[in-house]
Amino acid sequence: MKFNENFKDIAENYLFAEVADRAAKYTAAHPDKKVLKLGIGDVTLPLAPAVISALHSAVDEMAVKESFKGYGPYEGYGFLREGIKDYYKHMGVELAADEIFVSDGAKSDLGNILDIFAKNNTVLVPDPVYPVYVDTNVMAGRKVIFANATKENGFLPMPDYKVEADVIYICSPNNPTGAAYSVEQLAEWVKYAREKGAVILYDAAYESFISEEGLARSIYQAEGAKECAIEFCSFSKTAGFTGTRCGYTVIPHALESNGFSANKLWFRRQATKFNGVPYIIQRGAAAVFTAEGQAQIKENLAVYKRNAAVIAECMDGLGIWYTGGKNSPYIWLKCPDDMGSWQFFDLLLNEAQVVGTPGAGFGKNGEGFFRLTAFGSKDTTAEAVERIKRVLKNR
Amino acid sequence: MKFNENFKDIAENYLFAEVADRAAKYTAAHPDKKVLKLGIGDVTLPLAPAVISALHSAVDEMAVKESFKGYGPYEGYGFLREGIKDYYKHMGVELAADEIFVSDGAKSDLGNILDIFAKNNTVLVPDPVYPVYVDTNVMAGRKVIFANATKENGFLPMPDYKVEADVIYICSPNNPTGAAYSVEQLAEWVKYAREKGAVILYDAAYESFISEEGLARSIYQAEGAKECAIEFCSFSKTAGFTGTRCGYTVIPHALESNGFSANKLWFRRQATKFNGVPYIIQRGAAAVFTAEGQAQIKENLAVYKRNAAVIAECMDGLGIWYTGGKNSPYIWLKCPDDMGSWQFFDLLLNEAQVVGTPGAGFGKNGEGFFRLTAFGSKDTTAEAVERIKRVLKNR
Repeated sequence: MKFNENFKDIAENYLFAEVADRAAKYTAAHPDKKVLKLGIGDVTLPLAPAVISALHSAVDEMAVKESFKGYGPYEGYGFLREGIKDYYKHMGVELAADEIFVSDGAKSDLGNILDIFAKNNTVLVPDPVYPVYVDTNVMAGRKVIFANATKENGFLPMPDYKVEADVIYICSPNNPTGAAYSVEQLAEWVKYAREKGAVILYDAAYESFISEEGLARSIYQAEGAKECAIEFCSFSKTAGFTGTRCGYTVIPHALESNGFSANKLWFRRQATKFNGVPYIIQRGAAAVFTAEGQAQIKENLAVYKRNAAVIAECMDGLGIWYTGGKNSPYIWLKCPDDMGSWQFFDLLLNEAQVVGTPGAGFGKNGEGFFRLTAFGSKDTTAEAVERIKRVLKNR
Repeated sequence: MKFNENFKDIAENYLFAEVADRAAKYTAAHPDKKVLKLGIGDVTLPLAPAVISALHSAVDEMAVKESFKGYGPYEGYGFLREGIKDYYKHMGVELAADEIFVSDGAKSDLGNILDIFAKNNTVLVPDPVYPVYVDTNVMAGRKVIFANATKENGFLPMPDYKVEADVIYICSPNNPTGAAYSVEQLAEWVKYAREKGAVILYDAAYESFISEEGLARSIYQAEGAKECAIEFCSFSKTAGFTGTRCGYTVIPHALESNGFSANKLWFRRQATKFNGVPYIIQRGAAAVFTAEGQAQIKENLAVYKRNAAVIAECMDGLGIWYTGGKNSPYIWLKCPDDMGSWQFFDLLLNEAQVVGTPGAGFGKNGEGFFRLTAFGSKDTTAEAVERIKRVLKNR
């Protein structure tokens, strides 16, 4: 038996382990100091009451023979797919329910979708980016090339027709940079993809943070996208489901090539390697789309958005260049005084006792940049910002 | 962009669709007749009270900031892995907690595990068998060969040293045949695998149905198995979790080859393409291992086991040859009068209004055989058995 040798080519991702390690060492050496963590992209507010109530009801259904649910549809229950369909309708995107697949999270589907593509595709990934786009493709032995996201293009690279790509990853609002494409900019990517016969894998996990007009919440807001794009989204950041696990993937029927329908291939893949999301969790997710649920998750999102604004204001005050903060829970800042990412990490840790994430961990163009997240509590965020101001003003 | 052409080589699995279609047509033509379904391998009894109570408590935890859970460990929470570890200890198998990976079900892991193996492995699959072993490998372009399971070998094929295989699937108690290997027989497979340098993918989803001494509940009961086997198990049939979705995969540290550790490769795979099972569901699953939970699931299993015994007694009375029924929820019978699988399906449907599953749908050696399941209610099973007796006695 031969193991998959491609695993040798995946960089060991020490980023968050190294961050945790340095923070732990600091805490051990300075037990009297309170370290504030704005490093991890995980939510902290509890599930909305409407979701909790729906989860309890679904648990009760599972306790009684008459309402007990065994195997559900691979692609998700109709009640949830209809809710997602309506959600898209509100942003002006018309979908059929069978173009929507419920999953246990965007990360799973973003990795597993690669099963439906041949190995000999060239994959275009922005740099810096969420590391799993690269790792999942390297694991499968695919060629990965990069689109440079830089301060000069506002970390929003646009298509280069000299580059030949088959599979294109776009994450908007972006993790880690927080930069978000406009509908117009996405239309240019759609045009490029259609001309090249490429597919766009569009990660919309942070769409609910968008508040500015003109920015895209779905790639399908760009004309022609249904012919060339698959969209991945999640309840993780929208409704605090990081530990509750539910997401969805949209594959329009119009996405066809060479006699294959992407929608049918994915259905076949899921029917063979997946057995659906827990009934209980799907009921909880469906409650997000009720009027009550929408009002409640907006309250939670408002807390994170306010945190982001507080961090962004701090950077404005310090004259530090950044992306994100307005339509994203992430603030991606240029380290002051041309410091390296890890140098700035150590400065914030040692002098302000604030933990963030070094940009260098997200790709070569991340060097010299730094990510702060808005998912902490209001108080933690306020205190962290005061400390950062104090440290950086005195330099 | 090129889609994965291997999908063209996957047989469209019309089995259950065709079964449902013929049953629906019969019902439409005979609205006065009550059709009894013993075809599908899905549970019907509700979740155990201990599980329900744990699920409710976990939902309550998610409602409060102080106990809310965000991202959990990719490999599952310690509380559940410790429960699984103890469960194995009771069957005489010592595992380390970090050899256990919690998943959303055995089916997902049985498919996804292939990511850690190279494409150029030859895969040995019993025929007949659960169709996804074949389909997942064909999807990845691997060569699949078959081990013949027949009436002559009691549907328990043994190793043939002339056959060169790299990846070997064993499902025991088997789906669809209900046949179960003894520890001694598995030891022969382990010996073969070690001699060939092969890995055994052991599907133990039905282990909780084993009641006879000497039959294996885990492949690790066979000496040397930790060096060559990965075991997949699930709460689906053990605790009625088919719609609740939780399973586990065991990868011993001793399973190494060519500088690779299977355990580490799988951890890297899961960290990249998976984000863990819902906290709520893991709490429910952990309750299965409490004294209360164990007592309650045994009551449910006793109902299904009694149903299996009732069907088996019926076959004994009719002089029909079968496997399963004793250590399995499945009864795999030889169709009387040398009927074909679908011919017997039509006979039972038309004359007894009982729906089962034609064996031909599970592989070429399934032709002439038929699967009945014990997952119906006590009353349905008793009535179905009476009807089958009446029809087959009068022939």
